[in-house]
Amino acid sequence: MKSILLATTMLAAAGAAQAQSNVSVYGLMDVNVEYRNHNDAAQHSRWGVNSGGMNTSRWGLRGNEDLGGGLKAVFQLEAEVAMDTGAAATAFWSRQANVGLEGSFGRLVAGRSYSTSYDFLLPYDPLGYAPQYSWLTSAGATGNRKDGMLTGVSNLLKYTGKFDAFQVGGTYAFGEEAGSLAPSAKYALAVGYAPGPFGVVAVYDQVNGTAVAGGHDVAKSMHLAGTWQLDPVKLTAGVRRYDKSLASGAADQESSLWWLGAAWQATPALTLTAAIYQQDIRNVAPGTDADPRLLVARARYALSKRTDLYAVAGYAKAKNGQAVGLSRDDVAFGNTQTGVSAGIQHRF
Amino acid sequence: MKSILLATTMLAAAGAAQAQSNVSVYGLMDVNVEYRNHNDAAQHSRWGVNSGGMNTSRWGLRGNEDLGGGLKAVFQLEAEVAMDTGAAATAFWSRQANVGLEGSFGRLVAGRSYSTSYDFLLPYDPLGYAPQYSWLTSAGATGNRKDGMLTGVSNLLKYTGKFDAFQVGGTYAFGEEAGSLAPSAKYALAVGYAPGPFGVVAVYDQVNGTAVAGGHDVAKSMHLAGTWQLDPVKLTAGVRRYDKSLASGAADQESSLWWLGAAWQATPALTLTAAIYQQDIRNVAPGTDADPRLLVARARYALSKRTDLYAVAGYAKAKNGQAVGLSRDDVAFGNTQTGVSAGIQHRF
Amino acid sequence: MKSILLATTMLAAAGAAQAQSNVSVYGLMDVNVEYRNHNDAAQHSRWGVNSGGMNTSRWGLRGNEDLGGGLKAVFQLEAEVAMDTGAAATAFWSRQANVGLEGSFGRLVAGRSYSTSYDFLLPYDPLGYAPQYSWLTSAGATGNRKDGMLTGVSNLLKYTGKFDAFQVGGTYAFGEEAGSLAPSAKYALAVGYAPGPFGVVAVYDQVNGTAVAGGHDVAKSMHLAGTWQLDPVKLTAGVRRYDKSLASGAADQESSLWWLGAAWQATPALTLTAAIYQQDIRNVAPGTDADPRLLVARARYALSKRTDLYAVAGYAKAKNGQAVGLSRDDVAFGNTQTGVSAGIQHRF
Repeated sequence: MKSILLATTMLAAAGAAQAQSNVSVYGLMDVNVEYRNHNDAAQHSRWGVNSGGMNTSRWGLRGNEDLGGGLKAVFQLEAEVAMDTGAAATAFWSRQANVGLEGSFGRLVAGRSYSTSYDFLLPYDPLGYAPQYSWLTSAGATGNRKDGMLTGVSNLLKYTGKFDAFQVGGTYAFGEEAGSLAPSAKYALAVGYAPGPFGVVAVYDQVNGTAVAGGHDVAKSMHLAGTWQLDPVKLTAGVRRYDKSLASGAADQESSLWWLGAAWQATPALTLTAAIYQQDIRNVAPGTDADPRLLVARARYALSKRTDLYAVAGYAKAKNGQAVGLSRDDVAFGNTQTGVSAGIQHRF
Repeated sequence: MKSILLATTMLAAAGAAQAQSNVSVYGLMDVNVEYRNHNDAAQHSRWGVNSGGMNTSRWGLRGNEDLGGGLKAVFQLEAEVAMDTGAAATAFWSRQANVGLEGSFGRLVAGRSYSTSYDFLLPYDPLGYAPQYSWLTSAGATGNRKDGMLTGVSNLLKYTGKFDAFQVGGTYAFGEEAGSLAPSAKYALAVGYAPGPFGVVAVYDQVNGTAVAGGHDVAKSMHLAGTWQLDPVKLTAGVRRYDKSLASGAADQESSLWWLGAAWQATPALTLTAAIYQQDIRNVAPGTDADPRLLVARARYALSKRTDLYAVAGYAKAKNGQAVGLSRDDVAFGNTQTGVSAGIQHRF
Repeated sequence: MKSILLATTMLAAAGAAQAQSNVSVYGLMDVNVEYRNHNDAAQHSRWGVNSGGMNTSRWGLRGNEDLGGGLKAVFQLEAEVAMDTGAAATAFWSRQANVGLEGSFGRLVAGRSYSTSYDFLLPYDPLGYAPQYSWLTSAGATGNRKDGMLTGVSNLLKYTGKFDAFQVGGTYAFGEEAGSLAPSAKYALAVGYAPGPFGVVAVYDQVNGTAVAGGHDVAKSMHLAGTWQLDPVKLTAGVRRYDKSLASGAADQESSLWWLGAAWQATPALTLTAAIYQQDIRNVAPGTDADPRLLVARARYALSKRTDLYAVAGYAKAKNGQAVGLSRDDVAFGNTQTGVSAGIQHRF
């Protein structure tokens, strides 16, 4: 996605250092045809065109300005595009709308962006948060509940620093409730170490709900993940512990997710990936434990560095007659679901 | 509208052929001042600023990437702009949001786009689907009913091929109802032949409504059209047969539209166009037949290849005291309507 | 904001003069962290991330085409961006969506834009309409009423002409009510004179409300303002007289605003600004006169011509126990409000 550079403007101004800058228009268009079974209460199947098989379709503007002394101003605007209908997201720039500074100290931005959790764990998902199909950002639990990490965040301050093989990051997002500083704030902290053929990451985040009588909900997630490059295969594994305490005093919502994946660079153009995501739902009534599992296999064929054809198959299964869906976003209807899709992705 | 090329990126990557690509930011801004009579129930007239006299105002991004061997990846995002209020469409990229491949076999895209009907008939409308004023995409019938072709389509697969003077195309759009493949699907098929000074086109499309008790509505339209360049005049004519069967068992909605137009290149900069659109409403109760007719005259003066001034006058009339409106989109109030407008169009 | 020029297209066409054009993608990203007291009915304070401290965050496209003979086609699309949430405005291009012609006669555009009042008074606001904090576009009155100028306008025709040190401008916006030409129309007229170190401007605008029984509301505002450059200090002062007559026959809403500001270029990079905005509410019941006052102090440090860091403090106070807010947009809760913020602005 290092993409289209708009022509550069030279600003030689009295009172300001010569500044050089560039702005890029970039995007990713991903469309596929998908078959899914068990897609409504009557367990009917469905054929359709979907936007985003391997990655969410998007476009954006980003740029930086050299301020001298190793300092840069940076900004990014990024919008989701539903390629099947042409719709934008409810908040148009919901993916990225931030500005800040970058230097030897790292990068600090303010506005709307993805959390540190999302940024740090992305390389540790064998399917890279693919809408078809990954459960790493959130996974189903019992009764269409979703347990997951902190993803897109408004009112955010985010810091990321890289120091040799180490990477550290933190997110703080204001709750913006009048009354006090932080009752509904969101936090994330992460540290990664990637010296070469392998990498590990540890991430913690916490989402404080809006204040209500009795306090407020508090959702915490903790991730540990690693990856190991054994050419031509790359192995990835990780685990999430999720715990949400409720202001209502009801039982905590708890689950553990673990995942494991392998990507095989079969030829320079062809990558074959297989992965499993397994939820272990805790703290629910006996016999209602869904413990959903997702199996995914994907073939990706590169027509160029920026254009791929792909085919994906996914199978999700829940225990105890609970509902489960392949998609982390959609409502589930059956206790298994199978989906197959084939599509194209182009980046500019 | 072949427009602004953003700077090109060279991607020389191991495992992928060298790829060259370009992305364009383009647009069309069309604004006018219009007077219309019979614009409300009290038959008041109205003055106003409108967006889109000759063409709908829009902006977009489009690009392609050379994949080698005559194959290209192609994409397009296009959004309507209401220049009078600054509003975007409800689905932001409702005009175009698609990606696909183009080669000697033709062009295949998936996502949101205009139907094959819309693409193939555009050159056969003397006014090119002008909001002020053309009835080719849809025309009024009795009681504010609109009969027309399949225009913008979600969940689409579209193929277009050109082989010498022949052009063929097809659209398939998934209904995306769970339960079966196609109950609410949409189709279009077209073939054109344009060997030089003349051209002809035949188009069929069908829109299957959402399944209800009793089945589903089915709207079919069939078009035949031709054009003949007799310098400095271009003649255009065509006919549509429209038939919509209703799941409710009520009488079919039927109409025939014919149109005829002439465009005279009076000087290199000045084009004068006149056209008539005539609906023949069928299968309605005696004495309620609207049979609306639209007469349009337009002068277009080119300030450059990309900027025009224009003036348009339109007159619409219905029979039997039925309501008729110049615009294919607005509600009608009188049994005639006259409108005149003058504006500017700029393309980039 | 003289920004990124996209590559230029040469259009050498038979029947049209050679045309040269350019299109720019530009933007302004402004984000800050702010503390405000008295931010809800319980007088709680609030910390948060805001979009737009010195200027509203935005992005846009603008361009022109040389038509020969000193004539140019011009267009502009400009959209607000809420950097804290990624949201766009309800009408996406609510800031600018217009097209027109520019030449020795001046510039005439049609569509959506800011009024002549807004354009002419901008250089006469010591804080340049800063969301944090300026009351020049509108200021609170008694009971959360806002009295202000005509700002963004739909269905507009706008003319601006510059003749040596003189500048004249006018806005006419159609009400677009059926029935007659102008009951709900909006107007603005302005003349400015700026021969060098000083400048003066006089502006009148009028907003006719929608017709109701009894006629319609009519809001009139009249501004006089001046500025004087006394290096390294720039002084600015002005006054607004506002009068809104109501179709209901209730007492006119009346107020006078005056403002005074000084900007000191302390170093080439550092600008310190102080300003006062004082409303004098008239024609209200004795003892309910809010007469709100705003005091603002701002430090702006330029990292480059296009990137600034800034810190702002504001204090607003109302009389007679009336509510007052720093922001011209938000609801007020206390009879004073204090806010401090620090942020970054980047332009491209």
